[in-house]
Amino acid sequence: MENFTYCTPTKYVFGRDAESHAAEELKNINIGRVLVVYGGGSVIRSGLLARVISVLDNAGIFHRELGGIQPNPTDPKVREGIGMCRRDKIEGLLAVGGGSVIDTAKAIAAGVPYDGDFWDFWAGKSVITEALPVGVILTIPAAGSEGSGNSVITLLDGLHKISLRTDYWLRPKFALLNPELTFTLPPEQTAAGIADMMAHIFERYFSPTADVEITDRVSEGVLKAIIEEAPKVMADPCDYQARANIMWSGTLAHNGICGTGRKEDWASHAMEHEISAVYGVTHGAGLAVVMPAFMTFMAAHAPAKGAQLARRVFDVVETDDRKAALEGIERLKTFFASLGLPLTFSQLGIENPDVELLVRKLHENKGEIIGGYYPLGAKETAEIYNLAR
Amino acid sequence: MENFTYCTPTKYVFGRDAESHAAEELKNINIGRVLVVYGGGSVIRSGLLARVISVLDNAGIFHRELGGIQPNPTDPKVREGIGMCRRDKIEGLLAVGGGSVIDTAKAIAAGVPYDGDFWDFWAGKSVITEALPVGVILTIPAAGSEGSGNSVITLLDGLHKISLRTDYWLRPKFALLNPELTFTLPPEQTAAGIADMMAHIFERYFSPTADVEITDRVSEGVLKAIIEEAPKVMADPCDYQARANIMWSGTLAHNGICGTGRKEDWASHAMEHEISAVYGVTHGAGLAVVMPAFMTFMAAHAPAKGAQLARRVFDVVETDDRKAALEGIERLKTFFASLGLPLTFSQLGIENPDVELLVRKLHENKGEIIGGYYPLGAKETAEIYNLAR
Repeated sequence: MENFTYCTPTKYVFGRDAESHAAEELKNINIGRVLVVYGGGSVIRSGLLARVISVLDNAGIFHRELGGIQPNPTDPKVREGIGMCRRDKIEGLLAVGGGSVIDTAKAIAAGVPYDGDFWDFWAGKSVITEALPVGVILTIPAAGSEGSGNSVITLLDGLHKISLRTDYWLRPKFALLNPELTFTLPPEQTAAGIADMMAHIFERYFSPTADVEITDRVSEGVLKAIIEEAPKVMADPCDYQARANIMWSGTLAHNGICGTGRKEDWASHAMEHEISAVYGVTHGAGLAVVMPAFMTFMAAHAPAKGAQLARRVFDVVETDDRKAALEGIERLKTFFASLGLPLTFSQLGIENPDVELLVRKLHENKGEIIGGYYPLGAKETAEIYNLAR
Repeated sequence: MENFTYCTPTKYVFGRDAESHAAEELKNINIGRVLVVYGGGSVIRSGLLARVISVLDNAGIFHRELGGIQPNPTDPKVREGIGMCRRDKIEGLLAVGGGSVIDTAKAIAAGVPYDGDFWDFWAGKSVITEALPVGVILTIPAAGSEGSGNSVITLLDGLHKISLRTDYWLRPKFALLNPELTFTLPPEQTAAGIADMMAHIFERYFSPTADVEITDRVSEGVLKAIIEEAPKVMADPCDYQARANIMWSGTLAHNGICGTGRKEDWASHAMEHEISAVYGVTHGAGLAVVMPAFMTFMAAHAPAKGAQLARRVFDVVETDDRKAALEGIERLKTFFASLGLPLTFSQLGIENPDVELLVRKLHENKGEIIGGYYPLGAKETAEIYNLAR
């Protein structure tokens, strides 16, 4: 077990009607002027945005709105938000949506009090020491951004998609989690979200650190819960209990509890980020393609952790590690397929992936060697991309 | 799944040498004058207290010391600490020890800014709205007080042992967790700590709330980690990795993550509190006696959850719920016995327990009906106490 520091100060308010607490929670942290950030039409169509605005109005909270955040969010909206906050003396942000909306709100929050360009933080040229507080009303359980200190933004110029991780500054102050808000998610988005949260655990599970039984067991528990509840939300999108279990699982998958005391991997996320930056695919769908390919590579080169996953989560009984790992991957693929997720580039709609381009951009953005469980250079990442064809 | 609010703002610093961060963490929360609370001789003999004092001195932090906190801590030391804090304008507390020390520090922290008697909070006559900040250097993984909002104090007058639970005010601001500090724990204290942390999970696991798969699975994961690591710390008290796993498990067992979204039980803890208040036994040892008796009662009246525990944690394959639950209890008892824990009143050193007295005080302190999983009146609690003979 490695030394670690762990602090998750986010206050979670979970349950039916959680979003009605927005004004109260903003006031608890002394925010009287807020920028509401949201995405496309669904929060408008569902009436959620209007409800939230009405709650703010009734509480006398000044608000501005920034809508139109797209999946795989890009820097122009962040800059637009920073400008709005400065102009209107905004004191905090309220993200109403999924990971893209929350990540954009976080980037705005970090950029407002900073003299330079916000991208400096994502480019590693500067470190956040101050940020506006961010609150969240979650509508898509997937990215885990409601409880994480991360934010993924793509710089349009050069399509650099970068995930910035902070211990403290980018963690939301509060997150309002109402499973009912996820009833209207289309099946492909529900499924992609499930792949995303599972990947957040796999990235921590494939670790070079030995002797982290407690963190392994918690991770395996969250995975088992997801695997049991996922078919229920696919079968009945309005199954409150199953939606609730999936929603809370998505938060636990990425608020750090599955990573305590160990080095993490994140190679699959890095590899997928290049796919979605270049081809604009849904992040979770891209992960469903990359993760099994990553695990297949590992079954050949370092099968131990994949074998443990197979035995403890997928009930594989095989004693040989390599065979067990491969059998686990088959069961994972079967599970992903049952949710309607793609398993190959081709099923993702990319008939001829430009592996050379992906590999070049990957190592340009993330360095010569990526991964924590097993070191991956350009030769190895190309092999994994090719395994996903 | 029930609606819930969950916030664990405690900053955990985990690993070798964690205690050396004491001054830094106190300064981070603007504490310049601190009361150091500790127990008996072990923190003196080990040199830990002197090391901590030296760290404070080097950082120019003013400090006073309050030692001699006993297991099952009582109100006089709390009153003494409150007096010291007021006299010396103390700004925060640093608890160096296990649950009794931390719980005393928390009670002092709540009492200092309060005009009335601190016991008002424990007696349910008043609600905490202010408290001095508390930091922790943990030496005994057991009570989980380093991450919980709870404090258990016994009022000497009448031997009322009461656990007060708060969402926020009694949660430590930081907890420094160095597994090496637990190397010198005697085996019976290590074992009692393990029983205590397992009980913290069982109290949440035996819940009337259905459909909390995610919380069940996380709870089962923590239990499995404890069961796997416990024999290692008993065999080699200086096994750093096993001690680390046990220490972090003890925190997760009681910081609330195993209870999200469900009603909890806490009947066993309430029943044990009467035993340790009357007979002065070690809390964890008392729990090792009460928990199997509680579960045996449940196997007869509401076997479902015990059966799930047996199958998922103790690998029982029996299909009949009652039989499965009973088989799980046998395995739990075998596990407790392997750690040298008592399983009966008699093994606890109480040949003729005064069940009538225990039952009377229990319901006087906790109300006519206790328990969340299954309602327990005086007839039922007497039956459980008798099952533990």
